[in-house]
Amino acid sequence: MTAFKETIAETAALIETALDDFLPTCDGPLGRVADAMRWGALDGGKRLRPFLVIAAADMFDAPRARSVRVGCAVEMIHCYSLIHDDLPAMDDSDLRRGRPSVHKKYDDATAILAGDALLTQAFEILAEEETHPDGVVRCHIALELARASGKAGMVGGQMIDIYAEQKDFDLAGVTQLQRLKTGALIRFSARGGGMVGGGSDDEVAALTAYAEDLGLSFQIVDDILDATQDAETLGKPAGQDAEMDKATFIKLLGMDGAKAKAAELVSSAKAHLDRFGDAAAPLKGAADFVFERKS
Amino acid sequence: MTAFKETIAETAALIETALDDFLPTCDGPLGRVADAMRWGALDGGKRLRPFLVIAAADMFDAPRARSVRVGCAVEMIHCYSLIHDDLPAMDDSDLRRGRPSVHKKYDDATAILAGDALLTQAFEILAEEETHPDGVVRCHIALELARASGKAGMVGGQMIDIYAEQKDFDLAGVTQLQRLKTGALIRFSARGGGMVGGGSDDEVAALTAYAEDLGLSFQIVDDILDATQDAETLGKPAGQDAEMDKATFIKLLGMDGAKAKAAELVSSAKAHLDRFGDAAAPLKGAADFVFERKS
Repeated sequence: MTAFKETIAETAALIETALDDFLPTCDGPLGRVADAMRWGALDGGKRLRPFLVIAAADMFDAPRARSVRVGCAVEMIHCYSLIHDDLPAMDDSDLRRGRPSVHKKYDDATAILAGDALLTQAFEILAEEETHPDGVVRCHIALELARASGKAGMVGGQMIDIYAEQKDFDLAGVTQLQRLKTGALIRFSARGGGMVGGGSDDEVAALTAYAEDLGLSFQIVDDILDATQDAETLGKPAGQDAEMDKATFIKLLGMDGAKAKAAELVSSAKAHLDRFGDAAAPLKGAADFVFERKS
Repeated sequence: MTAFKETIAETAALIETALDDFLPTCDGPLGRVADAMRWGALDGGKRLRPFLVIAAADMFDAPRARSVRVGCAVEMIHCYSLIHDDLPAMDDSDLRRGRPSVHKKYDDATAILAGDALLTQAFEILAEEETHPDGVVRCHIALELARASGKAGMVGGQMIDIYAEQKDFDLAGVTQLQRLKTGALIRFSARGGGMVGGGSDDEVAALTAYAEDLGLSFQIVDDILDATQDAETLGKPAGQDAEMDKATFIKLLGMDGAKAKAAELVSSAKAHLDRFGDAAAPLKGAADFVFERKS
């Protein structure tokens, strides 16, 4: 675990620096949206998605200058979705990573526009030549990110999360929600890393299988943490699933069953990477980390 | 004018059909966001931006199958921006094109997500191979659309429109606001048409000069219509600039001065297209149409 923590801290620092460069401050009303984008995107989180991109691309010896850009793009999509999800019209969350959410720090209009601008900039970064010299590869990555984050992916998952009668969800329903709302971007991250690194179709398929298991275990652990940790540890409200009477993996499998399922998925995720040998150690470390994290 | 009206009606019908195909309905909570996307994107407006794409691409004999896709992408960006701008947190408009705006028809959360999904799908469409066989061209178009619609373009313009003390704006300030908020997408439309059609750098530059003049005259006419037409004719509230004490081209130039400036820009826009001969007739017709429109 220690080696992994150093690795993810190292890539998080790379992403922080790159995002800082991509998101300059400026004067006037444009400065307000620029500051809000920075508030929503900088100094945040574990940067798990960019880590997956970079670690997957590293297996193919891809230049970090390229994989960091793909990592920034997926992180901008992740951050825009948090900004919009936190709005009063959506989840109405005042706190994010222990700080005021963007609409609390600024206001709702600025938060909407900052989210829109981050979403847009993600595709700007992917389309730029510095991301990969081959335009077809750049388009392929952009296409996958759009599909993972749009109506048939993350946005669709948020729609289900808000409007479905989740208390009646069975395991298939909860799994489908996870697959869209959080799974699609995690899946993209591993695939996008393989694609920017020039992995073969078979290799990208192995990364996909890894990421699908990883994403589902990530959500199960999220449910466990929501039920067992306090808000201070999580940096966001706790106990919300029970309060809202949502069907979760815990409700459907029991706490022990949920833990066993998460552990099984982590093993399975790692097994998909055996073909890559030692080069897969960082991604395997991420799977252990997702399982063992406390927030 | 009659020939032009037939031409723009013909391209609007192509866009309507293509958008209808791009935006299928479905069941469940996903159906709700799908329906909201359709409500915000279908049955709407003059489709001026897609017209500019298609008419510019036609000059280079580009397959309509390609230019229609670029037109749909820019129209999705335009429509998402209207959905988000209409939200209570932004311009708080209940009406759009004479119908309830998306958040009135559905709710704020659905409107936010429908806008996000349309924005995302615009880049999905551009990245797909059907848009152009050359990935570099697809990336170039996507890059320009991202820059035109993001923080340094349309989103930035909306930020200025909401937060700047517009009553003190001089002509440079009003022009800068227009250039970002409406000009950037109009400029992209003409350039994107030239790019998907394979125009040379010089040819795309001529289209750019045309579109910059066209976009500014479009905004001046918008100001004139806001001051002189009623809400029923416009399909949206009228007289808002005066009510909000905004600096407009009319306030700064007088009504006669504004009309003269718009006319001058329309002439100048058309002159930039002389190099294309008769092939430029539809785009020249669009310039006359922008000047003579009543809503």
